[in-house]
Amino acid sequence: MSMSVSATLAINDEVARRHSAGLSCLPLGFGEAGLPVHPLLTAELSRWSGVASYGPVTGIAALREAAAGYWQRRGLHTTADQVIAGPGSKALLWAVLRACGGAVALPRPSWVSYAAQAALHGLPVHLVPTPPGQGGAPDPERLATVIKAAEAAGQPLTTVVLTLPDNPTGTLAARNTIAAVCELARKHNLTVVSDEIYRDLVHDAHADFVSPAELAPERVVVTTGLSKSLALGGWRTGVARFPATPAGDSLRADVAAIASEVWSAPAQPIQRAAALAFTEPAALRERVRDSRRLHARIVAAVADVLIEAGARLTYPSGGFYLYPDMRELAGRFGVADDTELAAVLLYRCDMASLPGSTFGDDPAALRLRIATGLLYGDDDEQRTAALQAEDPVRLPWIADHLHQLNLALTGARADARPGRREPRPRRTSSPHDAS
Amino acid sequence: MSMSVSATLAINDEVARRHSAGLSCLPLGFGEAGLPVHPLLTAELSRWSGVASYGPVTGIAALREAAAGYWQRRGLHTTADQVIAGPGSKALLWAVLRACGGAVALPRPSWVSYAAQAALHGLPVHLVPTPPGQGGAPDPERLATVIKAAEAAGQPLTTVVLTLPDNPTGTLAARNTIAAVCELARKHNLTVVSDEIYRDLVHDAHADFVSPAELAPERVVVTTGLSKSLALGGWRTGVARFPATPAGDSLRADVAAIASEVWSAPAQPIQRAAALAFTEPAALRERVRDSRRLHARIVAAVADVLIEAGARLTYPSGGFYLYPDMRELAGRFGVADDTELAAVLLYRCDMASLPGSTFGDDPAALRLRIATGLLYGDDDEQRTAALQAEDPVRLPWIADHLHQLNLALTGARADARPGRREPRPRRTSSPHDAS
Repeated sequence: MSMSVSATLAINDEVARRHSAGLSCLPLGFGEAGLPVHPLLTAELSRWSGVASYGPVTGIAALREAAAGYWQRRGLHTTADQVIAGPGSKALLWAVLRACGGAVALPRPSWVSYAAQAALHGLPVHLVPTPPGQGGAPDPERLATVIKAAEAAGQPLTTVVLTLPDNPTGTLAARNTIAAVCELARKHNLTVVSDEIYRDLVHDAHADFVSPAELAPERVVVTTGLSKSLALGGWRTGVARFPATPAGDSLRADVAAIASEVWSAPAQPIQRAAALAFTEPAALRERVRDSRRLHARIVAAVADVLIEAGARLTYPSGGFYLYPDMRELAGRFGVADDTELAAVLLYRCDMASLPGSTFGDDPAALRLRIATGLLYGDDDEQRTAALQAEDPVRLPWIADHLHQLNLALTGARADARPGRREPRPRRTSSPHDAS
Repeated sequence: MSMSVSATLAINDEVARRHSAGLSCLPLGFGEAGLPVHPLLTAELSRWSGVASYGPVTGIAALREAAAGYWQRRGLHTTADQVIAGPGSKALLWAVLRACGGAVALPRPSWVSYAAQAALHGLPVHLVPTPPGQGGAPDPERLATVIKAAEAAGQPLTTVVLTLPDNPTGTLAARNTIAAVCELARKHNLTVVSDEIYRDLVHDAHADFVSPAELAPERVVVTTGLSKSLALGGWRTGVARFPATPAGDSLRADVAAIASEVWSAPAQPIQRAAALAFTEPAALRERVRDSRRLHARIVAAVADVLIEAGARLTYPSGGFYLYPDMRELAGRFGVADDTELAAVLLYRCDMASLPGSTFGDDPAALRLRIATGLLYGDDDEQRTAALQAEDPVRLPWIADHLHQLNLALTGARADARPGRREPRPRRTSSPHDAS
């Protein structure tokens, strides 16, 4: 077996290695939200730090009830019995793909781990391009073609995954696209997995958000977690909502069985704090609102820098990612595929990003995923200031990061080529020395 | 797909259900250590409750270094680079079995999850009986036969698992048995997975403990965790030590790749506290010593009750399990297989245990696994008293539990048969009301 570490986590490890070696690096690779733990949750985790029983495989009742309430407030009738908590929604998605157990349709591009998880299970994957500007959902017409071809080939699809809003593109599929996917799923008896971990980070809080679970409740598994909206990635806490049907119960039971043999249950003290988070007290709602505003502002500022450097992109409508088309810049650098472009940017321009091909995209499309979550500050003080600032772009360390990005993209020497030699140690202009 | 929840976790859920329904139940089923979190660790988890970055896939450096030190103190030269931390050693074992990727030899009986994990991976399992009184290691002669047969059948073994000391039997394989297994592994190029999660709970701290990693360092993966020695099951923290060889590095890289697509990393605040635990400060060494003494004392007392009731057993030498042969009792009850016997004991005698067949054993051998970890008290106050008592057997709630067990085994009506009707609510003599 030859496998490699998830690209998003690998770039995080690489940036950490560069920092500890005293090398500067603009950390635009990893999808970490980069914001402090809210004091309410710090206190709650402390409060439960003396608890260490295993608890139920599907998660403690308080957490499952709180998650049910979370969905209830978003118009999805949910009982605690429909919910499984896991150590991250990643783990739950992995188990759900296994429990569904057949060929999987994914949007192209899509989050790195869906395809890797399906590969771990030995399940066939079909990458279906998204409609223009609507990341996170396969184009329904193309999906219909793929469904028919897979049926004809004797390996029918069982599952289609949506990401709403999307990672890597930061865009949100339109209601009629989602409805068309749901209709196809109903017609061909597919399970729809709706990864809604960025849902609360749709920049316009009044935007029309439709979950497939509203349209085809009998066949949609929704997953979410606290890693993005409350920046709790390292707490590893996610929840999945299963259909309230016999088939949904059976799928949920299979996921619980898998969980029981792999991770047993999420860490108990973390579950307790997560239970509070999912009840959404006012202070946390306010924090999510501030985070959403900060992400939207910085994403817009980064978009401006990218566009100035010749990139083309659809303005993101949620989360903290951008997905520019960098063909013009790549042309100037004389590189023809996105992995080479990302390497040039990392080794010559000290800027970490991820190539679109990591997300299943065409290397020649020269897309990069740019994550803004680690630009907000080097410590909790700076990050809190960023959350509270009238205009965070004017905070000196953020302004410096944006300036660095501008330099990296426009000031980089046009003859730059990726090389094997280590970049020269240089600390003077490191964004991580800014303060 | 039709799967069921791990039997050990399922019995835990069932006992919890019975308690919340006001039904009494002697909780001898689940392998939870049932002791309080040490205040040093509660404080450490609190201290890190504001940390929520993902951190490295293989675990934070402090934890990997601490785990290396832990093994170093036990005579196994280890560097942090050889270590991966995961959300429980269960998750790591699952990933290691997958990374080894071939047929697996397991002792018979052995912990419920090894075979279930191999089945999840689609890997063939060979159950190899243990030498009499030496649970946790396959009989070397029988193992040799299995290796040859598997080779001849074109599905050669890649992996053999040992549990030292053992769950379910509580016994410890002898040095020459372990050496013979290592020799076979070397001859046939197998990876030995040595699950040593009960290592620090060998009752006689001066007993001869040999890890296969001392005998065949080039091919042994050792796993351990804090769930048993420090009763931190619900914290989900385990570590694996890989051989310091190119093959070991490659196996470790594969496990990291799997981890990155399934759980990302263990929960960060938990990792911080676990890092302290693995440095083994004096207060925690003392706690482990007290726990070991308590387990040994109660296991011995339960053994006496079992023997009085006609059971035959090898006295356990580690952990908090007993594995009696209950043929005589079963005969009195008129039942012929262990699942029926466990059902009679649960539904008629209010005693939860697990049948040996759950661990791969012959149902007609009429073995039960009895876990003592949940007898020590209903709250942290009682459990702390149990840890500190001169003779814990004389504490009223423990004496009451032992009396209950005696009644269950000897006072139960000989005509008792398992039935579908719910047992009558009865709270008066519930061990969980004792105080």
